[in-house]
Amino acid sequence: MDRTITSTSVAIVGGGPAGLMLSHLLALAGIESVVVEIRTRQQIEETHRAGILEQDSVRLLVESGVSDRVLRDGDEHEGIELAFGGGLHRVDFRALVGASCQLYPQTEVFTDLADAHAREGREVRFGVSDVTVHDVGTDRPAVFFTDADGTHHELRCDYLVGADGSRSTCRGAVPEASRAQYFREYPFAWFGILCEAPASAPELIYNHSERGFALISQRTPALQRMYFQCDPATDVADWPDDRIWEELQTRLQANGHTLHEGAITSTSVLPFRSFVQEPMRHGRLVLAGDAAHTVPPTGAKGLNLALADVRVLAEELERAIVRKDPSALDDYSVRALRRVWKAQHFSYWMTTMLHTLPEASPFDVRRQVGELTTLVGSTAGSSYLAEGYTGWPTAR
Amino acid sequence: MDRTITSTSVAIVGGGPAGLMLSHLLALAGIESVVVEIRTRQQIEETHRAGILEQDSVRLLVESGVSDRVLRDGDEHEGIELAFGGGLHRVDFRALVGASCQLYPQTEVFTDLADAHAREGREVRFGVSDVTVHDVGTDRPAVFFTDADGTHHELRCDYLVGADGSRSTCRGAVPEASRAQYFREYPFAWFGILCEAPASAPELIYNHSERGFALISQRTPALQRMYFQCDPATDVADWPDDRIWEELQTRLQANGHTLHEGAITSTSVLPFRSFVQEPMRHGRLVLAGDAAHTVPPTGAKGLNLALADVRVLAEELERAIVRKDPSALDDYSVRALRRVWKAQHFSYWMTTMLHTLPEASPFDVRRQVGELTTLVGSTAGSSYLAEGYTGWPTAR
Repeated sequence: MDRTITSTSVAIVGGGPAGLMLSHLLALAGIESVVVEIRTRQQIEETHRAGILEQDSVRLLVESGVSDRVLRDGDEHEGIELAFGGGLHRVDFRALVGASCQLYPQTEVFTDLADAHAREGREVRFGVSDVTVHDVGTDRPAVFFTDADGTHHELRCDYLVGADGSRSTCRGAVPEASRAQYFREYPFAWFGILCEAPASAPELIYNHSERGFALISQRTPALQRMYFQCDPATDVADWPDDRIWEELQTRLQANGHTLHEGAITSTSVLPFRSFVQEPMRHGRLVLAGDAAHTVPPTGAKGLNLALADVRVLAEELERAIVRKDPSALDDYSVRALRRVWKAQHFSYWMTTMLHTLPEASPFDVRRQVGELTTLVGSTAGSSYLAEGYTGWPTAR
Repeated sequence: MDRTITSTSVAIVGGGPAGLMLSHLLALAGIESVVVEIRTRQQIEETHRAGILEQDSVRLLVESGVSDRVLRDGDEHEGIELAFGGGLHRVDFRALVGASCQLYPQTEVFTDLADAHAREGREVRFGVSDVTVHDVGTDRPAVFFTDADGTHHELRCDYLVGADGSRSTCRGAVPEASRAQYFREYPFAWFGILCEAPASAPELIYNHSERGFALISQRTPALQRMYFQCDPATDVADWPDDRIWEELQTRLQANGHTLHEGAITSTSVLPFRSFVQEPMRHGRLVLAGDAAHTVPPTGAKGLNLALADVRVLAEELERAIVRKDPSALDDYSVRALRRVWKAQHFSYWMTTMLHTLPEASPFDVRRQVGELTTLVGSTAGSSYLAEGYTGWPTAR
């Protein structure tokens, strides 16, 4: 097969927020990279994902020149509501830890990044196919792919980055003997909807109830995103709009809150899963974002963790390339994993504090209310939650 | 059957720390009570139980005039060590929340209370038998019992208190339709030892390891109390001293600590169980301490919760008796249960953060280390733990 052979310093597989942000940060440091992505730009923009950015994620977008829209069009959230035991209890991030989050959907982050690359005329190849990685154990790994025009490419590089999401091709290139994988399945999922309705609350509501968890979030003044805990085998076809609203309203009314209803424009079932691959480097291949780890969605850590990964990775790749420091990529793995396990715990904590396990006894539900009561009654406890939610500082 | 009929204001079934402390507090308020207890004083003094008092438990013993020994002979602990991930990490209660605990075994608390009653010449009937409660739905309930001399008694009272421990007789007198019971079993137990050895550390060590939890605590300079997580079906006969020391040392050495060994003078397997009965009053019967709730031993909440119950109960009984306020006993139940569920959660948290579940995956063990790392790295998180450990203030 004829292949067009090219080369670059850093080849990045995956053009989601992690891959594009890394490429952008490398460009700022004067390091050349090429991004390849199997989806088209349009496909990615049509995928609804998380919407909450930690304060350092916002800072990264702004300070790297990717987005001022995040501040202009995003909505600052200075707290969340914890709904349990018959009422709503606000956790005031600003008052507790002097920090906030930004409601700014992942698709907007992606659009800002894709626009920045387009503006700078950088090489991002969307809609490629047949992506395979080669020679990852050598000094000159490669990505093979077929571009949108049908041309076959062999892209050689000094460093290969797998930012290709939870079904990562790059992750599979690490020999089994060189990595450990850690999993956890959860016995529930989220039923997610988009609806055309006014916001039911100014901030996110994390709602505990005997019937299970619900999350009320916002998207725009006219479009809302809501979720409720469901069985992973749930078929959206069994849930007409009336049934969805009844379930959501019942869960919220247990805590005295009523939702504004509207036409439901999208439904989906989101699986819950925890995953970590260690280490996050193998030779000249490094993994970033969902390729290396998955968190359950409670607490919105997925995108933030991916951005934290590439913030550290850009630094360490610069050390490896400019200063030729061979320990840089190992340091990347150690630094990134420290945050990954904190985020895994935080996501697990938010999940188990608020969701009803299928085998939960009435004791367990009452104990959860005991925890939530203790938490909102304690400045220390609420601050501990606020620290995790708004994001820990990046460790050196 | 001939019965000697007597009467009192408050009849208290159970002469452990909860019953004796309540009787003492009522006496200080000028309210008469009689305590009946099926065990002898000697039997109670030979039962080894918890050893850590919250700061308000210490204050109660001192300020009520029960004990100055708790300050003189007890050992103030200003923190604990959390051992995980290869090292020890101190949680400094004094620095974090300005509070401390006192190492002072439950048997000493009991002795101080029994001595106080003997000193004041109050009626505490140890070693009775055939205890039954009657007419709990009426204005004049009764306790029937046979005293140590074989005399049958009928003790009539205005209020009947069940402080008769986890196998409470009084609890059984509440009709099923008038109460809810909440349970949780845990798939592990503690193997506890007493040993004649010098202390292995100045403060308690809560030790996480892949092999399971271990707790290193102290009793006197020459006598130590240690525990390790085990299967509930464990037979102490299968554990010669060598095997016990090997298991304990292996778990501690995972975090770089070595124990001083010595002759093991006592071994036992402590079950893990959570239980709450709601409400804690029925007519003129109220429950206090283990009769109403059981917590797993991690975090040492059992005795402290019992003392917190009777502190509130003495106030509310005084309101009921002296001020004839009919809502007092309902308020007791509400106030006590608020703390009970906080303590249930705290005990569950300490337990699940540190113990290895039989079905734990390597993910779960790493996530626990992620939690412990986050906790000791956060002043807010460590303070939240310290607040729970040293004890929340009693709510009005």
